[in-house]
Amino acid sequence: MGSMFGSVFRISTWGESHGDAVGVVVDGCPAGLVLSEKDIQPELDRRRPGQSSITTQRQESDRAEILSGVFDGKTLGTPILISVGNSDARGRDYEHMRDVYRPSHADYTYQAKYGIRNWKGGGRASARETIGRVAAGAIGRKLLSVKYGTEIVAYVKSVSNIESPVDLNNVSRDQVDANIARVPDSDVAKTIIRRIDEARKDGDSLGGIIELVIRNMPEGLGEPVFDKIDADLGKAILSLPACKGFEIGSGFEGTMSTGSAHNDAFYMDEGKVRTRTNNSGGIQGGITNGENIVVRAAFKPTATILRAQDTVDDRGNEVQLKGRGRHDPCVLPRAVSMVEAMAALVLVDHALRQTAQSEFL
Amino acid sequence: MGSMFGSVFRISTWGESHGDAVGVVVDGCPAGLVLSEKDIQPELDRRRPGQSSITTQRQESDRAEILSGVFDGKTLGTPILISVGNSDARGRDYEHMRDVYRPSHADYTYQAKYGIRNWKGGGRASARETIGRVAAGAIGRKLLSVKYGTEIVAYVKSVSNIESPVDLNNVSRDQVDANIARVPDSDVAKTIIRRIDEARKDGDSLGGIIELVIRNMPEGLGEPVFDKIDADLGKAILSLPACKGFEIGSGFEGTMSTGSAHNDAFYMDEGKVRTRTNNSGGIQGGITNGENIVVRAAFKPTATILRAQDTVDDRGNEVQLKGRGRHDPCVLPRAVSMVEAMAALVLVDHALRQTAQSEFL
Amino acid sequence: MGSMFGSVFRISTWGESHGDAVGVVVDGCPAGLVLSEKDIQPELDRRRPGQSSITTQRQESDRAEILSGVFDGKTLGTPILISVGNSDARGRDYEHMRDVYRPSHADYTYQAKYGIRNWKGGGRASARETIGRVAAGAIGRKLLSVKYGTEIVAYVKSVSNIESPVDLNNVSRDQVDANIARVPDSDVAKTIIRRIDEARKDGDSLGGIIELVIRNMPEGLGEPVFDKIDADLGKAILSLPACKGFEIGSGFEGTMSTGSAHNDAFYMDEGKVRTRTNNSGGIQGGITNGENIVVRAAFKPTATILRAQDTVDDRGNEVQLKGRGRHDPCVLPRAVSMVEAMAALVLVDHALRQTAQSEFL
Amino acid sequence: MGSMFGSVFRISTWGESHGDAVGVVVDGCPAGLVLSEKDIQPELDRRRPGQSSITTQRQESDRAEILSGVFDGKTLGTPILISVGNSDARGRDYEHMRDVYRPSHADYTYQAKYGIRNWKGGGRASARETIGRVAAGAIGRKLLSVKYGTEIVAYVKSVSNIESPVDLNNVSRDQVDANIARVPDSDVAKTIIRRIDEARKDGDSLGGIIELVIRNMPEGLGEPVFDKIDADLGKAILSLPACKGFEIGSGFEGTMSTGSAHNDAFYMDEGKVRTRTNNSGGIQGGITNGENIVVRAAFKPTATILRAQDTVDDRGNEVQLKGRGRHDPCVLPRAVSMVEAMAALVLVDHALRQTAQSEFL
Repeated sequence: MGSMFGSVFRISTWGESHGDAVGVVVDGCPAGLVLSEKDIQPELDRRRPGQSSITTQRQESDRAEILSGVFDGKTLGTPILISVGNSDARGRDYEHMRDVYRPSHADYTYQAKYGIRNWKGGGRASARETIGRVAAGAIGRKLLSVKYGTEIVAYVKSVSNIESPVDLNNVSRDQVDANIARVPDSDVAKTIIRRIDEARKDGDSLGGIIELVIRNMPEGLGEPVFDKIDADLGKAILSLPACKGFEIGSGFEGTMSTGSAHNDAFYMDEGKVRTRTNNSGGIQGGITNGENIVVRAAFKPTATILRAQDTVDDRGNEVQLKGRGRHDPCVLPRAVSMVEAMAALVLVDHALRQTAQSEFL
Repeated sequence: MGSMFGSVFRISTWGESHGDAVGVVVDGCPAGLVLSEKDIQPELDRRRPGQSSITTQRQESDRAEILSGVFDGKTLGTPILISVGNSDARGRDYEHMRDVYRPSHADYTYQAKYGIRNWKGGGRASARETIGRVAAGAIGRKLLSVKYGTEIVAYVKSVSNIESPVDLNNVSRDQVDANIARVPDSDVAKTIIRRIDEARKDGDSLGGIIELVIRNMPEGLGEPVFDKIDADLGKAILSLPACKGFEIGSGFEGTMSTGSAHNDAFYMDEGKVRTRTNNSGGIQGGITNGENIVVRAAFKPTATILRAQDTVDDRGNEVQLKGRGRHDPCVLPRAVSMVEAMAALVLVDHALRQTAQSEFL
Repeated sequence: MGSMFGSVFRISTWGESHGDAVGVVVDGCPAGLVLSEKDIQPELDRRRPGQSSITTQRQESDRAEILSGVFDGKTLGTPILISVGNSDARGRDYEHMRDVYRPSHADYTYQAKYGIRNWKGGGRASARETIGRVAAGAIGRKLLSVKYGTEIVAYVKSVSNIESPVDLNNVSRDQVDANIARVPDSDVAKTIIRRIDEARKDGDSLGGIIELVIRNMPEGLGEPVFDKIDADLGKAILSLPACKGFEIGSGFEGTMSTGSAHNDAFYMDEGKVRTRTNNSGGIQGGITNGENIVVRAAFKPTATILRAQDTVDDRGNEVQLKGRGRHDPCVLPRAVSMVEAMAALVLVDHALRQTAQSEFL
Repeated sequence: MGSMFGSVFRISTWGESHGDAVGVVVDGCPAGLVLSEKDIQPELDRRRPGQSSITTQRQESDRAEILSGVFDGKTLGTPILISVGNSDARGRDYEHMRDVYRPSHADYTYQAKYGIRNWKGGGRASARETIGRVAAGAIGRKLLSVKYGTEIVAYVKSVSNIESPVDLNNVSRDQVDANIARVPDSDVAKTIIRRIDEARKDGDSLGGIIELVIRNMPEGLGEPVFDKIDADLGKAILSLPACKGFEIGSGFEGTMSTGSAHNDAFYMDEGKVRTRTNNSGGIQGGITNGENIVVRAAFKPTATILRAQDTVDDRGNEVQLKGRGRHDPCVLPRAVSMVEAMAALVLVDHALRQTAQSEFL
């Protein structure tokens, strides 16, 4: 019962990786937004496996279909159903996983919780589940862009111990998409691509950090004391598969600082209250202050590897498991779209708590 | 409208730091739990300022009163109202803050959002707001303890760059409370206490990291895909004042690893499925796997310092602000109780989603 | 876990009839509303027992205290806690009810559900619980009045088989409060008062119907397909103690009509779309159309009577129960304030879904 | 943003009458329930127009497809997506409704609220929207039947002023479906069918009352003080198109009674607490007492008629509108399935609040 998200822009995602389809219902989208599959497909394409040599090679076309909520090219204010068929021939490669728990996957915990699971490829715990999130996020992104000119840009900040420099104020989606690693610096990107390729050949996998900057959000969004923007961003992004950490502004490194160095001094800039530094990451007391929102998310190395691993089966035998076929040695380049989508969902939800659905557009 | 938390064990906190009282309503507590103020007061005492030489010296007695939901010493299954009067003479020291935005506080964002704020001591954005959380958390903690024997232990892992070693499997609350820094290692504690005292004399402040271990939670709790335990813990803890980061298991450091090194191999231990390592931090696919839950939270240096700072006032003038009186140079020792409370609230909520209110006790 | 109500203007009521206090937390009230106990007390006084010779004679002063959320006479946008102490000496008259289930009360079902109950006067199932609702409703009423000039007027339409004529467009609160029966027509009021007094002397009780008219609500409020205004009004009012029926517009009688007679023809009135009749009761497709909202609620005869009744005790013995002391022979005059409060809560919640908190005032 | 319903068994319906498809996502269904389209289709067939000579003749096949949440014939505990394509050639007959507001329809209020509407056949305000409810209700019904042996039987109690006698304790679905009017008494059914047929020929429509009896529900379900079973049933059923009234147990007629006559005396029946009468309708204090739950719902005469009616268009002109083609002179026989579905959704939601998802089956 945890597949709904949001307070007033509410989504309900559905679908297993090897069921008939995956998708989302969006309830609470303002009426009158020009919307078609063209707004959604590019985001799904960025999320899709098989985009490049360093991602998983499973070919999935992932075609979005809008089945409700849009009329004559505009949203009606009624629920929007987006469905993506699972066209790939599935189930072939999974028989060996039927009764064995893959280490650091959700096989064991789903079995413990539900007493049943779709053992073909992860079912609901598969990253394929994020299609619904990304589709809904595309709507959120468009609403924010139309309303505030908001820019949401995520990128691979680091893979393993290789980190990319980034100009937070100017980094663009074009720069991010300029290479298959989605690393803004093209030199570092090459190093990272090489490293991922090595891991792929080794049958191993790598983790890394995604950084996200959001520009042009108005001040005053956020609902203390629990539904603070940073808390909601944290939940949203930590709910993504493989995410193990979240920080905002100065984050963990900021704990090394002192109050006198860390506090963001206010000043006036053409009649507007601004801060000279942005250790707060754009949010103070859980409410946006108009500065860039800056967060980082840690993604563990992908659990699926092609090496022999110790594990147990569902009858309590200790066994060895060896993955087959292809694997995704680093989910980071694809996860960029997921992080952006979750951020868009949180922000549009808070925007619609501040300016209601009927007065938003 | 963001002062409610939880899905089936739902709390509603209320109160400003310098209003008449602060507190909480708990809706959804199972009937039949033996409960009195004695269960709540010790947690409030751990949270209270003025406990020791290194915390803020404001004396607050913080007496909890239960005004509903308990009858003949047991919970009725009806809402529990806990109120804590604000007995301290207040308002004296705050006149200079009336129209000036304190850097890295929520003064400016509250004003931007609501157009009005209680400028006496932070109002709703004050850490005093957490009294309601801690009181409700005490109930959650007791329910989990009675039901599963759950142990929830948080401690100060580091202050600034000084870090304490900890034995996750055995660290106890007694050890944590053995010194005023709430650092499990007594030698490191001394160093940390000295450092905090220096900051206090400097009128400055320090940040640090709180680590939390939860032992004896059953497997199978958590509601993918959004209400994963780790995501909900993240939101809960990130909603605490001054918290800027959250990680679970291997967290940010885990991004440096490889899948083959990072995956937690399963094995059988007396008929129970266990993992040899615990990089997952007790949660896989958002669901508990029965291992210890381990999370860390980053707290920035306290924003209130006694040094002159550049800022602006509410008429748009650039001014200097200098704090007066006493300040809390490091919130970490007190924040331990807040982190534990938020964890208890998340876990009891998920426990009650798994085993409903009427069948819990 | 059912003591919270509302979507964005959310209330959380608490308190048993014979506990220390009863009250409510209101989360989501817009900031900047002028508010004090003076806005709340008159509504509590209308709800209070012992107002007149025909209501229960228990004297309760029911003094409202606002303990949070208001600063310098204005709401802060933070949760508002209102508490009403249970000052009456309690518990004396209830010993005989300790182990006996009163017929058509909630004694048996609370015991079945929770395994424990406050047997002193009904606990949470007492009408005293509605104090929190009425206090919160007073805030909702004020918000609607300030924003739209909304008028919410309920009155006793009938008691037993005696019905009062009413001019829906003009009936005022002054007229309603002009007699102790809260029946708009003073002649019918006298007959009803006499009938209630007879029932009182007989140790018996009477039921009746409350009608509610809401004038000056804008069109466009309501959230199909589930959170229709009429559905939400229905839930709100049916959740009141003793309420057994709800209808809107033509209601049950409308089932006797034909489409051609029942449809409300549209016409233009000074540039505004109006309907010639109002069988819809101000709501079409779950959304307000700008006409008066008209609903009726059926209240059963009060369950507490002073006559001997067959029942069972909690050990399974068939016994006789005879009420003692005074009783309330007809709850209708007091229930007027409860119906108005629930309507105000529903309407302000929907108003704030249409125009968000921060832009409402 | 009002298309989600339920607390722990949560549904999200979507789809306009003349969009591509309509359907529902069910989140919170226990894992392990045997489920296929065969469980859902019969309920949709009972709801479907064109079943008989007295319902609307539009032919809709309404084939349910389950696209997620079921694996190897059993529910996974993950969201269940059910989709029903809109196969009918649509849009032909609606051009004349493009800019005219049909009286007592939702055309005007949707336009006022959203500024846009799907004018082809009512869009989201069409009764076609209830397909998602009925499909989800079929799952709820099965869960209750498997768990408690619950029987949910609704039937047409009256059409216009013609009322059918019914034996509440024994009336069965077979009896209800024995005639096209879904009136349990076959003689009264004939009279009612004749009356509906007359209305059809007149281009007019009729209203009526549906009664619902629920047998074999355990005691103890319901969550006071707001989420009482009767209040939730009221909201659920009042949210159905054309529903204008709801009552439980003695309802409006009970207001004519006295407490001494109306109270349900308790007695012991083979160790079980029972009531001699059932004026409470199976619910006391908002909680089930184990007796039959009995409610009634008033449905107004269908708004669509084939007679000329006064109305206005969206440019503010007063015009005449005359319906074309076929119409549904009485929605009652079809609405039986909708009422049952909503009751099932409320009851299964409360059952799952009492016994959680993971322990339900």
